[in-house]
Amino acid sequence: MTLPTYSDVVAAARRIAGFAHQTPVLTSRTINEEIGAQLYFKCENLQRTGSFKFRGAFNSLAKFSEQQRKAGVVAFSSGNHAQGIALAAALLQMPATIVMPTDAPAAKVAATKGYGATVVFYDRYTEDREAIGRSLAQERGMTLIPSYDHPDVLAGQGTAAKELFEAAGKLDALFVGLGGGGMLSGTTLSTRALAPDCLLYGVEPEAGNDGQQSFRCGAIVHIDTPDTIADGAQTQHLGQYTFPIILNGVNEILTVSDAELIEGMKFFAQRMKIVVEPTGCLGIAAVRKLKDQLNGKRVGVIITGGNIDIEKFARLLQS
Amino acid sequence: MTLPTYSDVVAAARRIAGFAHQTPVLTSRTINEEIGAQLYFKCENLQRTGSFKFRGAFNSLAKFSEQQRKAGVVAFSSGNHAQGIALAAALLQMPATIVMPTDAPAAKVAATKGYGATVVFYDRYTEDREAIGRSLAQERGMTLIPSYDHPDVLAGQGTAAKELFEAAGKLDALFVGLGGGGMLSGTTLSTRALAPDCLLYGVEPEAGNDGQQSFRCGAIVHIDTPDTIADGAQTQHLGQYTFPIILNGVNEILTVSDAELIEGMKFFAQRMKIVVEPTGCLGIAAVRKLKDQLNGKRVGVIITGGNIDIEKFARLLQS
Repeated sequence: MTLPTYSDVVAAARRIAGFAHQTPVLTSRTINEEIGAQLYFKCENLQRTGSFKFRGAFNSLAKFSEQQRKAGVVAFSSGNHAQGIALAAALLQMPATIVMPTDAPAAKVAATKGYGATVVFYDRYTEDREAIGRSLAQERGMTLIPSYDHPDVLAGQGTAAKELFEAAGKLDALFVGLGGGGMLSGTTLSTRALAPDCLLYGVEPEAGNDGQQSFRCGAIVHIDTPDTIADGAQTQHLGQYTFPIILNGVNEILTVSDAELIEGMKFFAQRMKIVVEPTGCLGIAAVRKLKDQLNGKRVGVIITGGNIDIEKFARLLQS
Repeated sequence: MTLPTYSDVVAAARRIAGFAHQTPVLTSRTINEEIGAQLYFKCENLQRTGSFKFRGAFNSLAKFSEQQRKAGVVAFSSGNHAQGIALAAALLQMPATIVMPTDAPAAKVAATKGYGATVVFYDRYTEDREAIGRSLAQERGMTLIPSYDHPDVLAGQGTAAKELFEAAGKLDALFVGLGGGGMLSGTTLSTRALAPDCLLYGVEPEAGNDGQQSFRCGAIVHIDTPDTIADGAQTQHLGQYTFPIILNGVNEILTVSDAELIEGMKFFAQRMKIVVEPTGCLGIAAVRKLKDQLNGKRVGVIITGGNIDIEKFARLLQS
């Protein structure tokens, strides 16, 4: 098994150019004054399909052979990866099948179908989605692209941090949400190449700190699906590609509570005028907790996504 | 009275460079498919202070003489102009006094004070804010900057459209919200200079169509304060500077309902992940009404602002 390197991120950046958005880097005088630091927010909630997942998805599919393109791609996801794969496949004119649980939110099913993908449902209590995905892949010759533990996926995610460093210049610290580690491992490659001295923090929900446990004991720790509003970080374990990169290049893994995520979401809506999903608030929540260590620093935060049902969003704003 | 021209917009752009944000131009595949056109959204909700008003405010204050700077600026506004003036004054290190009604939303008062301005309250039922502003200006030698009817204010607002044309290239049509006409008149100067053939539409709330009436009869029509959720467009009449520019260079004034504004707000939150105030949804609402005429066109929309209390925002999302 060969781990990807920063040169794979550079290649991914060339591959996605003109297809993925170079998302804006926003700033806020209000939060700068609160933290006593200069913050730069990389807004992947404004990425196509509403999250960074499009980067890794497009990078992976763009590398398919002619034969792979004909048979198409299969993915299992009820979340942002589904939409990323669906749009990337549509743009590259290949068939896509997304395996989703029968109780997936209607809005996410509609969005995925809206991008032209075929949706196959499974019962999450009686069926094994991985087995379904594998059998679809075998029967129809389709290529399975996992949501995080894949070299091309994580190299694609690393392009966001590359753009952030290019736009914001030198950073002293960078905060990145952590689920399965696709974004954090890709960001690690870019950070260690472009800003070797920058402190790099992964941020998990308190309820699902498998990444923190793994980082501290040096081996992948598995947990039950955590109970948190950060649905993009409800992963049970890091991956065989993502974990060694994170272990080698990240400075610390922090955790934050759901209440702190909601405070972040309110701040983004009220002051920065952007819609951020709970998982996308991991970074800002950790910045606020680490405030005392950030005085006078230049700090980057990756806002990973903005996909949340507006009914739920409205309820959380009122909570 | 000399009307400003596009050269004043160019000068304003130089003056605000490095102080105002060059706001992002966002696109959405979803709305492009709905309208059958290519849309470009100029996001002034992501401007400093949350609206385009900062542009005109900063441009006006940057032109003050040394003596004017010492005495400072006075403005009466309970809305986005207040925040624009307050931040511009803070950046230019001059005192600012904002005259606000006693029943102004606490969040707006707090934001204005947060930028360092002095807030003076008046009773909107028994006192005349213009008289208060004028007497403050006379007693203390402060310069009064009105919220729209001023050459430097409208020239500053025109820089948003200038940036939009520079970022998006040729546009066939451009939709701009209309209150007192500061943004629309500034946009007219930029559009007629940079895109003479582009159809330019002003968009008002149905309940307050004084601009449409004025445009059609060729004279400034006064109305009572209109009852609409578009609080940034609750103006009673166009101005002596804004009206002739609009009359001469705009193609048509359209109106939309409050319900159509709320639909726009929901679309922006759900699909584009941005918070837009009701007034900021005038453009998209008109685009949807004019859909049949826009097929295959390149269409610009200026999103004027995002300042709305999140409680109210949440309620409207659920309505």
